[in-house]
Amino acid sequence: MAERLIVIGGDAAGMSAASQARRQRPDLEIVALEKGRRTSYSACGIPYHVGGEVESLDDLVARSPQEFRANQRIDVRIEHEAVDVDLDAAKVTVRDHVHGREILLGFDHLLLGTGARPFRPDIPGIDAPHVKGAQTLADADELLAHARESRCTDVVVVGGGYIGLELAEAFTRWGAEVVVVEAAPQVMGSLEPEIAAKVAEAMRRHGVEVHLDTPVEAIEPDHVVAGGRTLRADLVVLGLGVTPNSELASGAGIELGVRGAIAVDRRQRTSAEGVWAAGDCATSWNIVSRRPGYVPLGTVANRQGRVAGINIAGGYATFPGVLGTAVSRFCDLEVGRTGLSRKEAAEIGIEVVAATIESTTTASYLPDAEPITVELLAEVGSRRVVGAQIVGGQGSAKRIDLMAAAITAGMTADEVVDLDLSYAPPFSPLWDPVAVAARRAASMLDGSSRKR
Amino acid sequence: MAERLIVIGGDAAGMSAASQARRQRPDLEIVALEKGRRTSYSACGIPYHVGGEVESLDDLVARSPQEFRANQRIDVRIEHEAVDVDLDAAKVTVRDHVHGREILLGFDHLLLGTGARPFRPDIPGIDAPHVKGAQTLADADELLAHARESRCTDVVVVGGGYIGLELAEAFTRWGAEVVVVEAAPQVMGSLEPEIAAKVAEAMRRHGVEVHLDTPVEAIEPDHVVAGGRTLRADLVVLGLGVTPNSELASGAGIELGVRGAIAVDRRQRTSAEGVWAAGDCATSWNIVSRRPGYVPLGTVANRQGRVAGINIAGGYATFPGVLGTAVSRFCDLEVGRTGLSRKEAAEIGIEVVAATIESTTTASYLPDAEPITVELLAEVGSRRVVGAQIVGGQGSAKRIDLMAAAITAGMTADEVVDLDLSYAPPFSPLWDPVAVAARRAASMLDGSSRKR
Repeated sequence: MAERLIVIGGDAAGMSAASQARRQRPDLEIVALEKGRRTSYSACGIPYHVGGEVESLDDLVARSPQEFRANQRIDVRIEHEAVDVDLDAAKVTVRDHVHGREILLGFDHLLLGTGARPFRPDIPGIDAPHVKGAQTLADADELLAHARESRCTDVVVVGGGYIGLELAEAFTRWGAEVVVVEAAPQVMGSLEPEIAAKVAEAMRRHGVEVHLDTPVEAIEPDHVVAGGRTLRADLVVLGLGVTPNSELASGAGIELGVRGAIAVDRRQRTSAEGVWAAGDCATSWNIVSRRPGYVPLGTVANRQGRVAGINIAGGYATFPGVLGTAVSRFCDLEVGRTGLSRKEAAEIGIEVVAATIESTTTASYLPDAEPITVELLAEVGSRRVVGAQIVGGQGSAKRIDLMAAAITAGMTADEVVDLDLSYAPPFSPLWDPVAVAARRAASMLDGSSRKR
Repeated sequence: MAERLIVIGGDAAGMSAASQARRQRPDLEIVALEKGRRTSYSACGIPYHVGGEVESLDDLVARSPQEFRANQRIDVRIEHEAVDVDLDAAKVTVRDHVHGREILLGFDHLLLGTGARPFRPDIPGIDAPHVKGAQTLADADELLAHARESRCTDVVVVGGGYIGLELAEAFTRWGAEVVVVEAAPQVMGSLEPEIAAKVAEAMRRHGVEVHLDTPVEAIEPDHVVAGGRTLRADLVVLGLGVTPNSELASGAGIELGVRGAIAVDRRQRTSAEGVWAAGDCATSWNIVSRRPGYVPLGTVANRQGRVAGINIAGGYATFPGVLGTAVSRFCDLEVGRTGLSRKEAAEIGIEVVAATIESTTTASYLPDAEPITVELLAEVGSRRVVGAQIVGGQGSAKRIDLMAAAITAGMTADEVVDLDLSYAPPFSPLWDPVAVAARRAASMLDGSSRKR
């Protein structure tokens, strides 16, 4: 009998692993279990579907179960939910929702790609039917249907994370009154407070009500109680970030790590022999902090899946690590971040200078020049760049990739100043804002070394 | 008597040098000679002024002679032209066009920042009054006046370099019939032929006639003869690139280098003791080829000026080198390049693979996704990335900065694949086009090593 790989979860991590394993091992039997009806979809695309920019949900699907079956001989079983893993017996209990039965499947290799789900705080009313997440395509359909049918009068977004803010914008496109309530003093916890403040300001400028320091106390059928206020709501959207689906793993006795995600090493091995994990359910190695973190993003899921697939097939691959690089657009504002924030640097004991500069996205004399703010963190002593955040008009956010490369290469602030960056008036001032921030950081480092 | 620095040329290189020297040496007497009427202007901005996007020429001036005088005690003398340098006597002969006299000025340090001028081929009619370059602000004024007053019926751009193409676009905005004639088989010689072809295609799509393999034979008062054709022309614009203003230096016995530019070392020293050069008149060290080249760009001029200024003042600085990083926008197309092209790699004997991929600027399912093409060169053996070119819709060109950082850091194609780049649907597909190109290059490198 052929060796069998069972993949649990038919999205980015799981199907990348399955595809890589197939490529390396034509002889392997590969079964992929997906409890929903679709594989390999872009959850990140959901806000754009809800906002009406993406017509069909099918556009968000990179590859269908039929394609995996026909082109890669991967036995994808949709509406099949793994409900238990027995490591000693090397068997998965599967609930087959199509035929309403339960089956047992043996495995030689097991890949956990169970993903994550929107975090649901423990408050009264959280499980009411008008409280929705935005994780699956079924969620997307429900959200869009709501927007279209109810004409969306009042939407409350609970939590100011990426997806929450993107959905807030999407609903304003339908003419809804949108309110974001956030328990913390800022939106988007992974951003520096000053950068996050600019995001909140842009949201407000575009008609979104943003309440900070405002924890949600209760959800009622037609309103939300938050920070003592009563906010009308015919729809409540969860925007608090996600929590890893790691219960199947922990139930089987597999170790969990940061934020309750499945602990993996850089080859994507879990604590159990023959069991691998990748994507939003697993931890990920951080390049700067040199320790595991939790970064539930599609790019990471794809990479980790690839690495797991190669290793499962008997090859050797290691996950290169993350910087937590992320970009987003809110209304007319772009934001990007990579590496450590000031808070993260402090937590792991890295002493930094933080240089913040204001510039323009193009030569200042062009009519479409827009403000851009760059914050750059560099380590005192080594002078290496350890983090950067950018917020501003069109063309701002993607500059963060340059900083990701610089951080990965271990460049100092001085080396960033010296980079031969591109210039033409429609693209940047003569000195790119990123280089200006690096120069500021370098001179702050000079100052801090003189003080010693 | 105080030591005196004479700076010849009041633009980017010269004034950067003067500013740095002042910062380090408050005691230095600094005289800057500028034959025109303005200092520190953005020549790169000229096409945007001619195209009507930038209202006033003053917007292109970063700092005026008065500002240099008042804030930095730099004795800027406009309409003063250096006509001879006597190294033995350490004196510059200066023609003072304001008072119509000639004076002699002694120096302790001399900085040559004489810039470059549009290349004028030796053809009949080249010196006619309706043949114009676009190097100085006076040129810009004349070009705009022509566009406004004559209503610009027929414009012939001779040569398909950056400035030529940018001006071609500018004149189409005024409703002119614009023809570009280029002797070579492609526009923009520093681009790969396939990338350049896309630029030419975009120009044509926007109504610019582009004739390749078409050398200009003669310029007549109302037409240009090129490749046997007769092209109506009430204005002829030079777009053949620039040639360094190095005659003053060579006349003084100073060594010239690549393309007739003043040969400098990485501290910006010329062959003559106490004489420095920077900017469009000088050579520049190339990071990848490890030899001097000629890159007449504002970014380089600024950097070299800074380095020269620090060294003149007795400090120690070296020019970090160039990659020839450049970006431009033509109509709705963006283009960027950095590092070596295939031809340049071949010339210096670096064996490369060239990976070209097509992708989209955003997630393909978004309505504003546009095509993007990335070409990446990696060295066979070392696998390091040595060059990249990008062409495509909005958001394409600035990605070249990431490649400039990767090349400078000596990253291999594999390391670029592993970078934690940002992703969100409005900014890129899940795998950024740059990473896709790097992956293609890596697999081509695998193939070429198996063949050995």
